[in-house]
Formats: sequence, C-alpha cells, structure tokens
Amino acid sequence: MPAGRTAPGTGGRADADDRERGRLRQALHDVRRFTEALAAPLSAEDQTVQSMPDASPTKWHRAHTSWFFETFLLEPDLPRYRPFHPEFGYLFNSYYETVGARHPRPERGLVSRPGTEEVGRYRRHVDAAMEDLLDRACTPETAALVELGIHHEQQHQELLLMDIKHVLSCNPLHPAYTPGGPSGSPREPRKAGWIEHGGGLVEVGHAGPAFSFDNESPRHCAHLVPFALADRLVTCAEWNEFIDDGGYARPELWLSEGWAAVQATGWRAPLYWTDDHLFTLAGELPVDPASPVVHVSYFEADAFARWAGCRLPTEAEWEAIAAADAGYPGAAPHDLHPSSADGGQFHGEVWQWTSSSYGPYPGYRPAAGAVGEYNGKFMVNQQVLRGSACITPPTHRRTTYRNFFPAGARWAYSGLRLARDL
Amino acid sequence: MPAGRTAPGTGGRADADDRERGRLRQALHDVRRFTEALAAPLSAEDQTVQSMPDASPTKWHRAHTSWFFETFLLEPDLPRYRPFHPEFGYLFNSYYETVGARHPRPERGLVSRPGTEEVGRYRRHVDAAMEDLLDRACTPETAALVELGIHHEQQHQELLLMDIKHVLSCNPLHPAYTPGGPSGSPREPRKAGWIEHGGGLVEVGHAGPAFSFDNESPRHCAHLVPFALADRLVTCAEWNEFIDDGGYARPELWLSEGWAAVQATGWRAPLYWTDDHLFTLAGELPVDPASPVVHVSYFEADAFARWAGCRLPTEAEWEAIAAADAGYPGAAPHDLHPSSADGGQFHGEVWQWTSSSYGPYPGYRPAAGAVGEYNGKFMVNQQVLRGSACITPPTHRRTTYRNFFPAGARWAYSGLRLARDL
Amino acid sequence: MPAGRTAPGTGGRADADDRERGRLRQALHDVRRFTEALAAPLSAEDQTVQSMPDASPTKWHRAHTSWFFETFLLEPDLPRYRPFHPEFGYLFNSYYETVGARHPRPERGLVSRPGTEEVGRYRRHVDAAMEDLLDRACTPETAALVELGIHHEQQHQELLLMDIKHVLSCNPLHPAYTPGGPSGSPREPRKAGWIEHGGGLVEVGHAGPAFSFDNESPRHCAHLVPFALADRLVTCAEWNEFIDDGGYARPELWLSEGWAAVQATGWRAPLYWTDDHLFTLAGELPVDPASPVVHVSYFEADAFARWAGCRLPTEAEWEAIAAADAGYPGAAPHDLHPSSADGGQFHGEVWQWTSSSYGPYPGYRPAAGAVGEYNGKFMVNQQVLRGSACITPPTHRRTTYRNFFPAGARWAYSGLRLARDL
Amino acid sequence: MPAGRTAPGTGGRADADDRERGRLRQALHDVRRFTEALAAPLSAEDQTVQSMPDASPTKWHRAHTSWFFETFLLEPDLPRYRPFHPEFGYLFNSYYETVGARHPRPERGLVSRPGTEEVGRYRRHVDAAMEDLLDRACTPETAALVELGIHHEQQHQELLLMDIKHVLSCNPLHPAYTPGGPSGSPREPRKAGWIEHGGGLVEVGHAGPAFSFDNESPRHCAHLVPFALADRLVTCAEWNEFIDDGGYARPELWLSEGWAAVQATGWRAPLYWTDDHLFTLAGELPVDPASPVVHVSYFEADAFARWAGCRLPTEAEWEAIAAADAGYPGAAPHDLHPSSADGGQFHGEVWQWTSSSYGPYPGYRPAAGAVGEYNGKFMVNQQVLRGSACITPPTHRRTTYRNFFPAGARWAYSGLRLARDL
Repeated sequence: MPAGRTAPGTGGRADADDRERGRLRQALHDVRRFTEALAAPLSAEDQTVQSMPDASPTKWHRAHTSWFFETFLLEPDLPRYRPFHPEFGYLFNSYYETVGARHPRPERGLVSRPGTEEVGRYRRHVDAAMEDLLDRACTPETAALVELGIHHEQQHQELLLMDIKHVLSCNPLHPAYTPGGPSGSPREPRKAGWIEHGGGLVEVGHAGPAFSFDNESPRHCAHLVPFALADRLVTCAEWNEFIDDGGYARPELWLSEGWAAVQATGWRAPLYWTDDHLFTLAGELPVDPASPVVHVSYFEADAFARWAGCRLPTEAEWEAIAAADAGYPGAAPHDLHPSSADGGQFHGEVWQWTSSSYGPYPGYRPAAGAVGEYNGKFMVNQQVLRGSACITPPTHRRTTYRNFFPAGARWAYSGLRLARDL
Repeated sequence: MPAGRTAPGTGGRADADDRERGRLRQALHDVRRFTEALAAPLSAEDQTVQSMPDASPTKWHRAHTSWFFETFLLEPDLPRYRPFHPEFGYLFNSYYETVGARHPRPERGLVSRPGTEEVGRYRRHVDAAMEDLLDRACTPETAALVELGIHHEQQHQELLLMDIKHVLSCNPLHPAYTPGGPSGSPREPRKAGWIEHGGGLVEVGHAGPAFSFDNESPRHCAHLVPFALADRLVTCAEWNEFIDDGGYARPELWLSEGWAAVQATGWRAPLYWTDDHLFTLAGELPVDPASPVVHVSYFEADAFARWAGCRLPTEAEWEAIAAADAGYPGAAPHDLHPSSADGGQFHGEVWQWTSSSYGPYPGYRPAAGAVGEYNGKFMVNQQVLRGSACITPPTHRRTTYRNFFPAGARWAYSGLRLARDL
Repeated sequence: MPAGRTAPGTGGRADADDRERGRLRQALHDVRRFTEALAAPLSAEDQTVQSMPDASPTKWHRAHTSWFFETFLLEPDLPRYRPFHPEFGYLFNSYYETVGARHPRPERGLVSRPGTEEVGRYRRHVDAAMEDLLDRACTPETAALVELGIHHEQQHQELLLMDIKHVLSCNPLHPAYTPGGPSGSPREPRKAGWIEHGGGLVEVGHAGPAFSFDNESPRHCAHLVPFALADRLVTCAEWNEFIDDGGYARPELWLSEGWAAVQATGWRAPLYWTDDHLFTLAGELPVDPASPVVHVSYFEADAFARWAGCRLPTEAEWEAIAAADAGYPGAAPHDLHPSSADGGQFHGEVWQWTSSSYGPYPGYRPAAGAVGEYNGKFMVNQQVLRGSACITPPTHRRTTYRNFFPAGARWAYSGLRLARDL
Repeated sequence: MPAGRTAPGTGGRADADDRERGRLRQALHDVRRFTEALAAPLSAEDQTVQSMPDASPTKWHRAHTSWFFETFLLEPDLPRYRPFHPEFGYLFNSYYETVGARHPRPERGLVSRPGTEEVGRYRRHVDAAMEDLLDRACTPETAALVELGIHHEQQHQELLLMDIKHVLSCNPLHPAYTPGGPSGSPREPRKAGWIEHGGGLVEVGHAGPAFSFDNESPRHCAHLVPFALADRLVTCAEWNEFIDDGGYARPELWLSEGWAAVQATGWRAPLYWTDDHLFTLAGELPVDPASPVVHVSYFEADAFARWAGCRLPTEAEWEAIAAADAGYPGAAPHDLHPSSADGGQFHGEVWQWTSSSYGPYPGYRPAAGAVGEYNGKFMVNQQVLRGSACITPPTHRRTTYRNFFPAGARWAYSGLRLARDL
C-alpha cells in the first residue's frame, strides 16, 4: 500500500493533482493494454485451462484484475456505476474474505463461461468506467487505490506468464507461447566473485513517497554479521555440476522436509528440465550453461548452497548489497527468458530465494479495509524471494520488493544467489 | 461386435456389397455429421473443460471418435494413408492397451491444443479418407469395423451430452447447453401397473445378423422365478416421497457401501436437483412430477426399491418383458429430456438400473484384436443398466443392449423400474 | 440364518429340546474356548495392533464375538442381565446400524483399553450369562440365534488368523504366530485333470434343517452350459510359471480395474511372497511348488485363468461339481497352512474365487431384525469365493457356503481353481 | 550440542574428570530411571499404540532413547560392545539419514514385537554397557555425547507424555494416565500487566560452558523496536472470551493458511476441550479459568493475539525479557498440568508460541557427524516456541531454549503470551 503523500502548498494543489491524474491515467491505460497484449497469442482454449490448483486460467487473470478495480474503486466511488455481471463478484474474487463468498480456487478451470470474448467486454466496461472515475476529482485515497490496482495487475501479468507456461508444459505436444528463444548466443559463464559487507546495523525496507506494498514497511534497522554475497546468480552449468555430483541423491545436503519432497516427487532437476532441454515459453530449447538456473524450489536452492559450502542470504543481506549496486536500474527489459547478461543480475533475471521466512517487519501495519488482506495474511510458511524476474514488468521492480512462495513451489521464475559468512 | 454375416449367393454378391457399402457410407456420414451438430452450440472454451476424471472434454470426444476410424481402419486398410498428426495416436487413445501408450484420462482437460478448429480439420481429414476407403472393395471384416465405429461414435454422442451437462453444472452461472425445456406440459403421473411373468426358462441375449456388441452374445438360457415388472419408470413425484420419508437418512434401506457413499458425499437428492429445481441441458427447470427420475446411482435406486417394498429387476427379467413389449420400436425420438409420455418406457427415457452385475454371458468371447478391449475388460464392479435414454441416438437402442456403470455413478441418464417376486 | 425347525411330535418335545440345548451348550463352549486358544500365543501388544482398516485387532475379535451374544441374546432374553460395561456396545459393534452408533472401524487399533485381560473378563462374564440363558427353556428363535452366534464366532476365528498374519507381516522382524511349518514334505504337484459337466438345469443353494446363513437360500434352479472344472487347485509352481511368463506385466491378461491395481500397487507376486519365500503364520518358509497358491486377489486369479486359456467357474458350476464330490467331508483338519494333499481340494485348503459377483439368490429374504444386516447389505462390488480354507474351522465348512471379498483383497486365504467351456 | 569445554590445569585434570564422570553417571542414571517411571503407569497395550503419524508409541520412545546411546556411544566407543539386536538399528532410528535406513515413522504402531518387556531388557542392556563406558577414561567428545544423550532422552520424556495423552484421548472411554488433577484450587486469574522494553541492540543466544543445543548458538546481536511483553500467559478464561466473541468464525482474525485449517478441521476450541471440560492426563477435568490455555496451534495463537489487538512476541523479544526475569529458576516443579501459580510464567507452565519462524542464528554451524542432523535440518516451515512446559523436566529448561513445531500442531503443551509495540 502506498505511503501517505505529503500535501503540496495550497496554490499548486490543482495542478499537481492534474499532473498526478494524468500520470495515473496513462499508467492505467498502459498496464491494461499490456495485459491484453500478453493474452493475445493465446487461443480461447489456452485461456481456459487450469493446470494445477495454485495456477489460474489466463481469462481468470484478465477478469480478476478488472474485478479488483470494479470492487475497490468503481462500486464504492463511481456514482451510478453498474457492475458488468451480478455473479462476477463471486467468480473473480481471489481471496478477499471480507468482500464476500468466492468461487473455489481449484475450480477455476471448470468455468467455460464467461468466455474469452465476454471477458474482453468486461475489461472494456471497467476501462471505460475507470476513465470516468479519473475524470472526476480524485482523493489521495482513490489515487492510492488506483496505483495499487496498477501494481496488482502487474503482479498478475507475471502470474499469467508463469501459469500459461505450466499449462503448455502439461501438453504432450509441448507447444510454444510464442516462438523465438533468448536473444544473443550462448556464452561461457563468467567466473563468480564475492561482494563483501562488514556487518553491523543497516537500514532496510521502504520509505518515501514512491509506491510500495505494505509489507515493505516500515523501514527499520537490522544487525548483520560480516558476510559476502555472490556477484552473480547461480548458473545452469553450476546446477549441472550439482546434479552430476549426486545432489538429488544425498540426504545430508537437504532440509528434512526438502528431502521428503525429493522422495515424494522424484525431482531430479529443476522444473521444466528434460534431459538437456528446457521447456520455455518459446517451446523446448537447449540448456544455456551461462544463463541463471530457474524454476528451482527453496528446498533445492538451500541444498545447492549447502553443497557449494555456502548458504543463502537473508533478505536484509540481499537488500544491503542490492541497494548499493549502481548498475541495475533500467538495465533489464521485459523478456520471456533469463539471460547471461553482464551486471550484478539483481533484477530482471530470476527471483532469488533468501533464507528469510516471510513475516512482518517490526511495526508492520496492514493497509486499512479489504486491501489489508493483500499481504499480511500470508505471513507464515513462505520464504522470501528478492529481486525480480525477466517476466516482471520493469516498472514493477524495486530493491525493497518482497516476493514470497512456499518452500516447495517451482513454477515461479525462481533461482538463487549464494552467500557466505566472512 | 457384429456377428458373422452369411454370404449371399454368388450372383448377387456384387450388388449386395454395393447396397451394403451405400448403407454404411450413409450411416457413417449421418453419425459424423450428428456429432458435429451436437458440438455446434458449444464454444471453444466449453469444449475444452474436463469437470471430473470420468468425463471428457467435447473436443476430446470429437477427436477420439475420429482416432477410432484412423487407428482401426485407415492405418491398417487404406494404402498410403497419412495420419493427421503423429501425436494424436497418443492423445486420443482412450483405453486400448494393445495399441500403445496413451495420455492419462484425468489430464484430458489440460490439453488446450489442438483447439476445436484443428479438431474439426482432423475430423474432415478422417472423413475424406473414410470415403476413399469405402470407395474400394470392402471385406466383411472392414464393413464390420466401420459399423462398430459408427456405434462407437453413437456411444460418444451420448457421453458428450452427459459430460457437457456435468461441465455446465459446475459453473455457478448455471448456463444452458441449449434453451428450451421438455416438450409438452407437465401432467399427473399415471398409476403404475405390473407386468407379470410366470418364470421358467427364457432365452436372452443377441442372435442374428443385425449389429450388436460382443457383450450381448451368445444368446443363452436363463431360469427365472415368477416375478412382476412395473409397467413404467419410477417418477420424480415418487422420488420426492422417498426423500420426504427420510430415504436418505435411514441406513436400513441401503447397501453398506451405499450408506457409506451417502455419508461421504452428503447425497440428499439425485444429482442436479437443487431444492425443487433440476439443472438440465436447458438450464434450471422445475421438477416435473410425472417425468422419470434420472441421475440416481445404483445405491439410490436399490435403496428406493427396498423402501418401496420391491426390488430391482435382473437384466434377464428386464429383457424377458421388454422383448415382448410391442409398443417400443421407434416410439421415442432423440431428445434432451426424459418425458412423461405414455407407453412402457422401456426405451428413449432413462437407462434402468438392474440388480445384475456386469459379467460375461456363458460362452462369451471378446472380439479378436484390439477392439476386443471394447467391453470384456470392464466386467467387474459394474452394474448393468437396460433400455436407453432420451439422449441415446434412436438407432443405437436395442432390447439386448447392456450398458454398465459403477454403483456410485450418477452423471449418466440413469433411473429405475421396480420389480417384485410373485 | 437357520431355517425354521419343524416341531417334533408333542410327546418327545421336552427330550428333543434337552438334547438340542445340550448340543448347543457344548458347541458354544467349544467355540468360545477355541477362540481363546487361538489368541493364547499372542502377547498383549500383538492383540492390540490394527495393521489396516480392513483388519481388526485380536482383542477386538475376542470382544466383538462376546458383544454379539450380549446384544442379540443376553440383553433381550436374559432377565436382569447386567452388561459388562456401558460403553462396550459402542466399542464392539461391527456394523449393525440398527443397534446404534459405533466406534469407527479404522480406529480399532487406537483403543489400548480395555486391555487383553479385561477382554478376558468380559468373555467370562458373557460365558457365564450364556450358561444361565441356556439353563432356561429355550425358544426355537433363541436357539437359532445361539447357533448363529456360534457360526459368527467361527467366522471371526478365521478373521483373527488372517488379521494377525497381516499384523506380523508388517513387522520387519518377521515374527511367527507359532513355530512349525506345514506337515509333510514337499512333493511334486500332481497333474491336473478335468471334471466334466453336461450343463442344463441344476439346483443350488441350501435347503433342509441344518444351519446355514441366509444368503445361501433359497435353493433354486440355475441353467448351466456344458463345462469342465479342474480336479485340483492352481499350485504355486503354476503361479511361478505365470510370473515367469510376464503375467504381471501384460495388460491384455487383466481386467481394466485389475491392471490399474497392478500399476498402483506394484503387485508382482501373491501377498506375502518375497523372492522364493512366503511369510506364513510360522514365519518365513520356502515356497512349496505343489501346495495351492494363496493370497491372490480376484484380479490376479482372473488374469491367471485368462493366461491359462481358461476361466474361473461360476459359483453354480462350482457347487454343482462340489456337491457330487464324495471325498471331501471330514477330510481336512484345521491347520495353519494349505497342503498338497490328495483329493479334490474343495475344502480345507484355500477359498476359491468364482466369476460370480455376490448378489441375492432369487427370492432371497434377509433374516428379520438386526441380524438381517449380517449378509444382505454387502451384496454389491464383491466376488464370491467357494469352498473353505485350512484355517476355516472344520464344522464351519459347507458346500453351499458363500464367502465374499472385494476383487482387490488379498489377505484372505484365497486361491483358485480353473474352469472351461466344453 | 554442548559447547567445547575448556581444559582445566594439568594438575587437577584427573580429579576434574572424575567429578565430571561422576556427575554424568548420576545424571544418566536419573534420566534413564525417570523414563521408566513415566512408562510405569502404562499397560503393554497403552505402550504399543500410535495414534497419529507425528506421535510415537511409549515403547518406541523407551527403545529409541536407548538406541541413541547404543549408536552414537556404545558401538563406536565401547570395545567389544555387542548390540542387543541386529535389527533394532533399523527399527529405532528416528530420522538420522547418515546412520542408515530406518523403519517408516507412520508404521511405528504396527510393530507389536519387541514387546514392552523386551524393550525393558534392551534398556538394561544399554544401561549396563553405559556404566562400562563411563568407568573408562572419558574424552571430552564422549562426555559431550553422553550429555547430549541425556538431554535427548529428556526431550523424549516430554514427547512420551504428549503422545500418550493423544493416544488416551482417542479412546471413547477417556481413560486417565494417572488419577489426580492439578494441585491447588481454582482461583481468579490475576490481571495481566506489561513489561516494557526500550528496544535497541540486545544479545541473544547461548554462550558459556553449560550445555545447550547447537541451534541456540552463536550468541549474537538483534535489534529490537520498543515493545511490551505481557507479564503472564493467556488464560482459559480469556480464551473463552475469544470463543464467545466468534473468534473461530471470523476470517479477518486469521492468517490465510490458519483459516483454511479452521475450515478443514472444524476447530472450535483448543485440542482436548469438550464443552467446558478438558481431557487431561488425569482424565476429564473442568476448565480452570485462571490456568494458562494450552494445546493451541500457532494459527490459533496468532488469531487470538490479533483479536486482542496485540501480537505475538519475536523470540528475541521473549528472550530479552525472560533473561532479566529474576523469579523463574527452580520455581516450577515437574507436573502434569499447567497451573495458575504466581510469577512470570516464563517456565514450567506451557510453551509459548513466538512470531519467529525457526531458522539458523547468524553463523550457525550444525554439530559434526550424525548428531548434526539433530536440529538444523528442520529449519523451515516451523515456528519457534519459548519457555518450557509443566511436563518439561526442570533440568531441561533454559532461557535460550528453542522449541519448534509446525504452525498447525496442537498436541504439544503450547500456549501463548501477548506482546505489543510501544
């Protein structure tokens, strides 16, 4: 949730509001259009399938992000707003208990209607009403909710790609979302180095007027021991060494629950690896040794780190280094594949597992109202991932961003970076 | 499987073959076109969803019935036949172990591609090749397999409607397959009477040149005790009496396994009943007291019969009476709803549970080759249903027909007719 | 349930009653003592364990058989009878819905108290009260219930041995119930022959004054086709041939549901076979080639028969031949192991799967009252086994006896005998 | 794991060793005898039952604690030691992957043999050999392992009581472990106060020569915000207010996963509450309003804290206050029930959930060898509990002790203490 905005001087208030409204309107327009662009390569059939309870159909993402604006902005704030369909509130609520009953998540793939075209009409209905809303005088609370809705839709843009990748991977025909592999030709992985930190008190978390989610606040002190963080991500070549060294067959490398997962699931490589190929959004491609390993669970990342004689960083350690890294902003464009590009790889490649479980920062307060269910209620049995992925919209990346998944999840674009004590 | 055909005299052989080929070609054309007509009201999204492991997506039915012709006729018998797609043999094999590996049944709903349009192209590819095949001289074995393929596709026409009904029922919007309820206005159920039989030896099962499945043969003797069979089906009005009398709450009425099912599932009425409404292929409709109850499991049918002081008939009893019933042939057209029409209701309303478990007739021999997997391998833990349903294609109805489902299944158009000892 | 007894002439009534009471008292005494003898080799710990939901702890069998007499005889018929413990009616009811609520079957192994000694006191309490009951004038109904209770306890004697065998087999130490293997030294299996039958109408089922369960009646006609039945059981040597010929790896030999069971469970041999050893009640013993194979499921028996080019007999076929077999009565003593003895092996070796599903005979009526739940409510999804096993008490064996288990069950002493059409 | 011990001066070395050996010998003798005393009220049947996969039979605890000494001390360090039974290493290994294969945990209740008496002989065999071992010169490593084994057995003493309570609670007869309720008569709960802390850097974790587990080290800095900690535990009276206020029916109070647990399990009160009674080791007792609530999951504790407008403390907060609390040491004797005694209730009542997930301290190193599997491999998806319970042996209590359970576990003696920001 956005932090409170400080009111500018009275004289310039209207202009500032106009500029802010203009910016919001453009940002909203862009994000709404980008969602439709992401769905465009997909057939009606593609958009309907749910391949596992954790994932959602493409058309559900398209509808749910519209429901968010309808429920939290249009219905309360736009006079005479007519909801598109009386049952969509039930169908497209994700998990907001305080908003009312909702359709069970594992059954999202059973709902053939509304179809993709009707979902398109729903989106345009909401878009038009949002324009009406933004034509009106806009309170800071409303503006903050619009901004939240934009970032919410960006999250679902990433989920949409994660989820359709899983759908397509379940198809024995191995179809591609779009043709075309990673740009650039494979090269040798560069040798990893260490970025050292002397420890002591550091400040972490979000502060200031720019947007952030409520779970990134308040900014606060953390005490670190001296440590070093790798200056790049773990590569596919390194992961192959781990496999070749029996990494998936040696219980001493694994957390107890991780080893149980290996036994139960038969994991022998990251998700989407088959022999020396990867299933990607461009179909099957050969493994590129220099590119970051992706689609590993926390359990695998933790085992790899132990095998390497290292450990995973805490989220405070990660942030302390990343905040000082000059090279990242704007470096990585939106792409469908992690790359072997130069640079610290803090952003725009793969999410990076940390050893920190996901919990509240000291003094954390959830946002008021139903949107307070956004983050806080998931603060148990999840591990934090930091950075951002190639499929994360570039304007959605932040050094203080806290992503989180259960330790066994693999369908996110999750990789790792090593750390060690000094 | 068709019984062997006796060869006519040499002189008329060619003409007879021509007539037979013409008949087959027309029947094939009609059945293929009718499948597409059944799918026509459904969107691409509708045709993709699988709502439970026992059911299949519409487009799977459309493809699988084509695969049957491709696999058992075109590939072995049509020179230079080019299969439409090298992986469709894997994707659209239902359960023929001897034909090769196959895609797991519970995952049919995960396959968004091929889409509905490509499946349409697959069907037309197979249709054209089948015309080529039937242009050539046709052995009796080939003709028999074409006929089997026609009847196989008719079975899937019924399954397609059963399955899409289940899909649509899972949608909180309760959409209709097609608008329009049962023809005719509700009327009072007529009083049921009894058709008596003196018992003794009867002959049951199929004999003669007309088509039948292998499980209907050989025709054989069965010894019956004197009994009576109801002259109509159990109605919704009667089922409501059962409910009102605590039928779903009295363990003494139920088989042990049936009672466990009631406890585990919370059954309180037939499938698709909600209060006094039914979910139908035309959407939600009020219960018609005079129409046959439908979508009950064997467990429920058995409990109802016990409650009524009667029992279910054996399949031999059912056949002994139905074979003597003059009124049935041609009486009931294909429809989407059972009716409260006059007549014995042996056909064209709902399938009728019998107390007979599904097993081989004395001297039963499965058909040779892969199509021998058609029937025999399911002969355990299934109950036989007799008659036919409103959604059964009229040319697919036979007095000797043996349908079968597990005792807990409810998504077929299954009802019941009472019997008692004399 | 016992058939009604015809009243003898008035003069001899009292004497007949006395003789009958004396016989019952002795039979009851014998059966109660034998149960305790079967439990005697088992420790308190052994008697407490439940190794799967289908099986029960030894002390539960000891208590439940006492509860049967307490519930159906002592409470209704013995004035001033004081139940041993107010909660035992809840704890030791097996499945009689009409008698009241009961402890869930899968939780029988959680009940450490009452302990084995208290169960012993419970048994003696019931025994003493039963003596009181039998001292009084005894109606035919009461006598019939006592007889039923005796046969009920005999069934549990067999279950007790089946269940403790399963418990001990789960122990990595492979402990023995009692030491000592089968009597006699291994010999060559004798060559099997065929007993032919010309078919036609036969009478099957129980009639007459001797005891039988209600499911064996009424005696009725069945029409058979000409067939032959093997004159001995299938042996371990033959089963090894089936294994060596890939029997467990060839789907074409199996019912569809059976093949699914093979895939899901990894069956590669009968239950309790490990390499060339069997786990028995005497611990691990080498496989005896000539002894009947035992602990196979219906699915396996059916697949074996298909592999052998034969089929399983129907229960009517089995009974038609077994009733004519002169040699069996009294031949086989109670033993813990099937043998390779001479003779037709209809009784006293292993139960023999038939192709008949378990259902009611024409005109079947369950016994009146709660004991009517004894047999009829299980008449679905079970296959009939005929004959009797080495662990079946000799006085519990009957040609008309109908045992039944689900098609996947293997912990009963179940084997098979082949049949074929003539 | 014990910290390294500093060697005293050469002159006194032998004496110091003798004193240390004497202390160890006595401590070992005491702990081994106390385990047997805890098992003494239990029958052979009681000691055999496993009521859920997470719990273990009493006789397993008795054997496993002996296996620990046998495996980590006697086999490597005592010349000519003869293991009691060659298979016990397989049967009684809990989770040490590096020691070899082991019997699956959920099947511990299937093993009737060895019986309780044989387990007693096993214990005495190990006890005698341990005396031999301690008669010999003892390296610091050996002494450290003996001490670890003593503390390991103390942990299992608590588990033994937790587990047998669960076993007895599953019995519809509600039997008592021992008669006799909590000492003292119920009184009014005293009003709770707050202990304030100004925040800033604190040191937490174990340091010094006394025993601790490896997960309590190293001692390190943590930065705290100003906070207050309640000066007593949450009581049953307060929990009843939570229930009466709809605490179990209001999703907004719960973590998402917690609410799912409530829906799935039907939780409406702490484990072992029935109406206004508790099932205890003394059988059913009325709820004492002033005594600490116990047997609540982390999810419930967290929801209660939110309902109360507070939060749970972090483990660093808890330790910072508890370390300064003068009153605790030696205050609470070993007992079977939490009490409403005066004092801070940091120890000897119930374990106290913290908001900290269980992870490694900065610089954490697992102990070398197989005993390194003791703690570290569980560091994911667990919440830390601090303090100790009435059933924790008094010499096993430490301010730096870190207990841990999954967020849904309720069979431990787990309660809570509130915290809030200042």
